[in-house]
Amino acid sequence: MICSGVCSLMLIKLGVNSGFSARSCMLASPAVFRRQEFLIRCLGVKSMAGPTSEADAENILRAITPPLDHSKHKGQAGKIAVVGGCREYTGAPYFAAISALKIGADLSHVFCTKDAAPVIKSYSPEIIVHPILEESYSVRDEDRASISAKVLAEVDKWMERFDCLVVGPGLGRDPFLLDCVSEIIKHARESNVPILIDGDGLFLVTNSLDLVSGYPLAVLTPNVNEYKRLVQKVLNCEVNDEDAHGQILSLAEQIGGVTILRKGKSDLITDSKTVKSVSIYGSPRRCSGQGDILSGRQVVAIFISWARKLTVAPDWDTRISPKNPTILGCIAGSTLLRKAASLAFEDKKRSTLTTDIIECLGRSLEDICPVK
Amino acid sequence: MICSGVCSLMLIKLGVNSGFSARSCMLASPAVFRRQEFLIRCLGVKSMAGPTSEADAENILRAITPPLDHSKHKGQAGKIAVVGGCREYTGAPYFAAISALKIGADLSHVFCTKDAAPVIKSYSPEIIVHPILEESYSVRDEDRASISAKVLAEVDKWMERFDCLVVGPGLGRDPFLLDCVSEIIKHARESNVPILIDGDGLFLVTNSLDLVSGYPLAVLTPNVNEYKRLVQKVLNCEVNDEDAHGQILSLAEQIGGVTILRKGKSDLITDSKTVKSVSIYGSPRRCSGQGDILSGRQVVAIFISWARKLTVAPDWDTRISPKNPTILGCIAGSTLLRKAASLAFEDKKRSTLTTDIIECLGRSLEDICPVK
Repeated sequence: MICSGVCSLMLIKLGVNSGFSARSCMLASPAVFRRQEFLIRCLGVKSMAGPTSEADAENILRAITPPLDHSKHKGQAGKIAVVGGCREYTGAPYFAAISALKIGADLSHVFCTKDAAPVIKSYSPEIIVHPILEESYSVRDEDRASISAKVLAEVDKWMERFDCLVVGPGLGRDPFLLDCVSEIIKHARESNVPILIDGDGLFLVTNSLDLVSGYPLAVLTPNVNEYKRLVQKVLNCEVNDEDAHGQILSLAEQIGGVTILRKGKSDLITDSKTVKSVSIYGSPRRCSGQGDILSGRQVVAIFISWARKLTVAPDWDTRISPKNPTILGCIAGSTLLRKAASLAFEDKKRSTLTTDIIECLGRSLEDICPVK
Repeated sequence: MICSGVCSLMLIKLGVNSGFSARSCMLASPAVFRRQEFLIRCLGVKSMAGPTSEADAENILRAITPPLDHSKHKGQAGKIAVVGGCREYTGAPYFAAISALKIGADLSHVFCTKDAAPVIKSYSPEIIVHPILEESYSVRDEDRASISAKVLAEVDKWMERFDCLVVGPGLGRDPFLLDCVSEIIKHARESNVPILIDGDGLFLVTNSLDLVSGYPLAVLTPNVNEYKRLVQKVLNCEVNDEDAHGQILSLAEQIGGVTILRKGKSDLITDSKTVKSVSIYGSPRRCSGQGDILSGRQVVAIFISWARKLTVAPDWDTRISPKNPTILGCIAGSTLLRKAASLAFEDKKRSTLTTDIIECLGRSLEDICPVK
């Protein structure tokens, strides 16, 4: 392969050990990776990820984070709601909700099942937890319609106040529960609320693409397996890393103009028109394949709500590119999460957990975008 | 506006950047704000907040915090009870109860619903949690009277021992529950226990002013929205920040001589006779509107109970002004909370949460009023 050969050549020149392969290329440090990309570009060789341009990540993060000392930004700090958490899973919705608060959201709500609520509440008194979802095992057939209507009415009471809805973390796959969540997604669309789809929400949406199709405020944040299933379902083929750029573009286009954030060594982000990558920071804990530790893709939610408000403000810096608030939010969220993961890894090494990464979110934001 | 013009003039003299407006006046640091207020007073111009005088905040806090090394003050550290916590909300009553302990209260009790109790207990083993309140969904019509009587009997067993009752944090708005809480308030009045009304307790009281009307030991601690609803209901007009002083005075007078603590950039405190402001310290996290993070208005409760005991003691410093223990308690509580918020913000910046502020309460008290 040309790419592998060029990489070898470059890294030999950069003084890296021989015995280099495509595999070790994937494991290079961000600095080595950036130098390598630069040299590949100088030689005019197409990179593995296609002609994707690297986002101006930190500047975008700074641009869409509202300053703390301006009253004109009052109320812009955001209210996030997470729909997820069932008898089996309680960690994921908690991580999503607490992450938003740690970055500066006003309020984080979680809508979960009755079993999950006391547990999620016990993780933190800072989160507002609504025990309203029901799973099939606790619902008689004749009660399904009335219970579904009640669940929807409870969420609707709050819907207008939310700046972003995160659907999926720890949701599970119970058919009755997913039916209710489909209705919640439809109502969020009617209220023009951005919807970030993650985890089991992606299982739901992959099987019911109409839920997000044609909705520009839908953001899908698949991990490797979820991305694979999406590609198989929508494009009817396998994931092709040789044309990662073209494939993610087709995927977003086929789903109808949604935004997709595909996590990986470089995060790829598209809104079906442009593709951006975010490669800075990142923790080797993920590269070494030790699990989907970066399960905090939902930090994107708060940045989407900020970007959405700021990009329509009269004093918005029109030089910032791209323009689409969902893609800006993804770039900022991805950048912050990568930075937090790298800080946590510096400290905790192999024992780094999601909780450690969340503890580093505040410091990471302060490092990139200090409060004046 | 005269005020804006004078402010500009003052700040230009003080070397502050041009481009100053009434808006940025609100954003000046406490030191700049105090200098500006002083200069405005020298020029005889009426300040935006009316002729409110700044409380001698730290001295009052020192005066009413009981020393630890005097046996005569034994038992004066206070017992606080919080009435709040329902299926939906558990964080707020926990924050109120733990804050009192962190400042030095002897005991903190929480009276909440059966669903909320295990969760609140799980936050901390330091709090005594009584799972006695009931919401409509778990009560049959024919049982309402007997359950209500039982709830009241449970609270009455403890009532005489409480130095202050905090009613409202995370109470919810269930009609049956609020009916029971109305009865609790009536019994507290009969026992002459100070009652601090917060959160959903203010929703209850705004709709049933008789509950607190004419009770000098009632203290209302509204946030922006709760204050707005009170003004609309009681004064039948909108909030007028041009005459904040006059309006809060009228409000307290109309409700019948209660004490009101209105939180804001400067906290305004009145007992319907005098108005004091507390402007020192404070965190930009709140100024930017990033939520009602300072939801710890209930720290006032413990100071009210201390002030109430100390102001009748023979060795009380009669030079301390004002004289009313509820207003003294509000000044001290407000001062401590602002200091704790500013310390927490120094450390945590945008990621500051209520938990972080509570962690700074002890250090803040020690800074202002060190144990000898």
